[in-house]
Amino acid sequence: MATTPRIESASDTVQPGVHSVPERSGLLLEQVAEDIERQIALGQILPGDRLPSERALAAQLGMSRNTVTAAYLVLEKHGAIRRVAHRGAFVSPAGPAENPIDWSSKISRQAHLLDEPVLEMLAQSRLPNLRYRLSAGTPALSCFPLAAFRKATDKVLANDALLAFAIAPTEGQPRLRRAIATLDSAESSHILIVAGAQEGIDLLARCFIEPGDRVIIDRPTFPGAIQALQAAGARLVEWDTAEWSADVLERLLIAYQPKFIFTMPTYHNPTGRTMDEEQRTRLLGLAARYRVPIIEDDVYSRTRLQGSAPPSLYHMDKHKVVIYLSTFSKVLAPGLRLGWIAAPPHMVKQLSLIKMRANLFTEGLQQLALAELLENGVFDEHLTRLQATHAGMQKIALKALRQHFSSDELEFSVPQGGLYIWCRWRQPVDMEAVLLRAQQKGASVAPGRAFFAGPPDENNFRICFTASTEQDLPEAIRLLAQAFRNPELR
Amino acid sequence: MATTPRIESASDTVQPGVHSVPERSGLLLEQVAEDIERQIALGQILPGDRLPSERALAAQLGMSRNTVTAAYLVLEKHGAIRRVAHRGAFVSPAGPAENPIDWSSKISRQAHLLDEPVLEMLAQSRLPNLRYRLSAGTPALSCFPLAAFRKATDKVLANDALLAFAIAPTEGQPRLRRAIATLDSAESSHILIVAGAQEGIDLLARCFIEPGDRVIIDRPTFPGAIQALQAAGARLVEWDTAEWSADVLERLLIAYQPKFIFTMPTYHNPTGRTMDEEQRTRLLGLAARYRVPIIEDDVYSRTRLQGSAPPSLYHMDKHKVVIYLSTFSKVLAPGLRLGWIAAPPHMVKQLSLIKMRANLFTEGLQQLALAELLENGVFDEHLTRLQATHAGMQKIALKALRQHFSSDELEFSVPQGGLYIWCRWRQPVDMEAVLLRAQQKGASVAPGRAFFAGPPDENNFRICFTASTEQDLPEAIRLLAQAFRNPELR
Repeated sequence: MATTPRIESASDTVQPGVHSVPERSGLLLEQVAEDIERQIALGQILPGDRLPSERALAAQLGMSRNTVTAAYLVLEKHGAIRRVAHRGAFVSPAGPAENPIDWSSKISRQAHLLDEPVLEMLAQSRLPNLRYRLSAGTPALSCFPLAAFRKATDKVLANDALLAFAIAPTEGQPRLRRAIATLDSAESSHILIVAGAQEGIDLLARCFIEPGDRVIIDRPTFPGAIQALQAAGARLVEWDTAEWSADVLERLLIAYQPKFIFTMPTYHNPTGRTMDEEQRTRLLGLAARYRVPIIEDDVYSRTRLQGSAPPSLYHMDKHKVVIYLSTFSKVLAPGLRLGWIAAPPHMVKQLSLIKMRANLFTEGLQQLALAELLENGVFDEHLTRLQATHAGMQKIALKALRQHFSSDELEFSVPQGGLYIWCRWRQPVDMEAVLLRAQQKGASVAPGRAFFAGPPDENNFRICFTASTEQDLPEAIRLLAQAFRNPELR
Repeated sequence: MATTPRIESASDTVQPGVHSVPERSGLLLEQVAEDIERQIALGQILPGDRLPSERALAAQLGMSRNTVTAAYLVLEKHGAIRRVAHRGAFVSPAGPAENPIDWSSKISRQAHLLDEPVLEMLAQSRLPNLRYRLSAGTPALSCFPLAAFRKATDKVLANDALLAFAIAPTEGQPRLRRAIATLDSAESSHILIVAGAQEGIDLLARCFIEPGDRVIIDRPTFPGAIQALQAAGARLVEWDTAEWSADVLERLLIAYQPKFIFTMPTYHNPTGRTMDEEQRTRLLGLAARYRVPIIEDDVYSRTRLQGSAPPSLYHMDKHKVVIYLSTFSKVLAPGLRLGWIAAPPHMVKQLSLIKMRANLFTEGLQQLALAELLENGVFDEHLTRLQATHAGMQKIALKALRQHFSSDELEFSVPQGGLYIWCRWRQPVDMEAVLLRAQQKGASVAPGRAFFAGPPDENNFRICFTASTEQDLPEAIRLLAQAFRNPELR
């Protein structure tokens, strides 16, 4: 009499009921095989379950091991089981289902962590029916030096096509590295070209962050930085930019021993604040004392509207504690996808190794065309024009805000640079509902909560006054005010 | 009499020697403060050490808690210690050192894991003194349709500059997604534009891999895939492409329960092999049965030299188990940095979220120019020309190989597509030394070891016959043969 084998699944031991197999002399091996196949068919043994070893089953059934081996060979020939050297025999899976892959179950925990609502919000600012997009962070594209860029592009294609199209150094096109080094009073070995500041943050996060590392960031700050740092496993510690207390920073440095400080000292996004020179000196001193690097996000320093900004942390840095990050997205066009990191040469090399496995290198044509604009003075002339245009747009936006909101309702900053006005509704409000109504009216602004790594201040929103036109700005702000004021009206 | 406090460092308890402090009535608090400052100055208590709590020290010294609190306040005023709420008092760091940041100590373990030698090797193929670069994987750039591309670029700048320069969808320019969907008989909602196939692999790795996950890959395979998958924490299981055994693959699927299979079925890099239709059917069947997705790296299917390849796994896939990856780097130019993933729309969305935090979106100008070339038929004409040119170059390379190497010395493949000839020196050899000599003579090929995730076959190397010119190929291969034959000669 043969009893049913004990079946081991990958982790547990399954004990199905005992079945009797009728004795038929000489056909023992077929009886064993048939019994196991029946149990598979009945779902008593499941795909992936491990069968007992041949020796164990032979002992259990009181038959020779050869018989069991022969039975397993028959089962394998039938496709019912698979024998794997050193691991045993396993029940084969059933035939393929209609949709055998449950893709979402394959996605890694880290990818699941993505803050979809925030990203959805960013995506919404590209809704096709949206007439007034004050949510995006884009400079006045009407100022883009298109004719000069067309000429530069064609010149590159005429003279340097091979340079643009061949495999190129991961660090960036040497010509653009030199041009940026000149712009930034640095050496080109310190410059790494990246596909926009976002790639810079991602590379720095991948370079430095171990899961669980603390990072001190501004409160509030750029949502893309929050996303990239958290994706790398960083635990973010917020340092309040409104309060700006060196004392608080020092306590955070002691208490959290962070991997680095990520800060935006000039024309801060979203608040527009700028650290003064004394604050910068104190920040640099603390970083040096506590041996904590600073990553300076300096994407806005060339977007001044009035006055002038102090030198960057990178330029004030006597102790080599600062890695610097900037981009042409906020002064030329975000579609160029060209930014840079300035760092010690050995860190440029390390970051290049990471970039190499991420995307090998950045495309060449626009790097070379941009280098041309930096070299021939077009970029400098453009900046002067851009700053005047932006200053005019800020005035229009401020006037409209003052016209449509009372100062009892709304407080807002008047920054000396950048592309934004950071606003705060003074009373309790369902901001999500208000901004949705504004969108339905055709105007989008960025909700404040996207800018906080910690508990958000829901009463904030950010206006980008350069993403629209001088003509559209007043109407966009009027619609926004309407969304606050007349919830019923569409 | 005051005894020295017990000092706690962050983890351990430090017990410095006991010092006596002379009794001076009324100045107890100063004595305590001075004693601690002396110990700091002598290095007996170190920066970052935690001092005992005020209560504990008061008990230890037999004095009132107020006295100790006063002493700590004095020390804090001197800058010698910092008191942090709920955490205690800490010895302040010394003044900033010359170079306070040891950058390499800040780098994450994952970043340190980068296989520098392999990447160095890839970098070497760009050495400026190298005349014959057979190491890079680049198509014949002499065939690049430059005039048409110049025209297309200028047309985009004239008509669609805003589309190229504004913030654009992370999924890619809709026009290019449509053009690729047409090329690939897919729907554009299934297409995600990436900055080259390397970015595609990196995004897929970041999407799916948890540290420790197994991935089945071809042995040998593309080094960039090995790098990106390992960087995400994957443990790679090699499946031998020469043997091509469905049986072995099934055993690997059972034994390792991998996250996915990464394979290159058509004109495989580096071996040039192509799976036949029956093999593809079996591979797809196994993937569906064991519910393991396939990532099909199909960057070479449009580089055929003779005959024709079977349909891609993606097109044969009835069970939606395949995610597809391709690029224009091997059929137009690597400097474009444009490739694509084809996947179910919800996976396109998931991958876009990951791409968004990595670099927001891919630059627009070249996407739109490329769409123009796909739409106006220039790409198809170009492909015909390119394939003829490549076939001619392969013939020249094979002739030179047969002229300079005997079949007793060297075995190599004659693939029906791709850019490579995969060679194997039959006798034991110090391949690294040989290839270094070849480089010194001015000719580089890719060392075989870069293509193995597991123990490498050191006797292999890969020739890219399309990276040079028809004129230079014979001389490059002669120099390579010389490097094998005459080790002494330079």
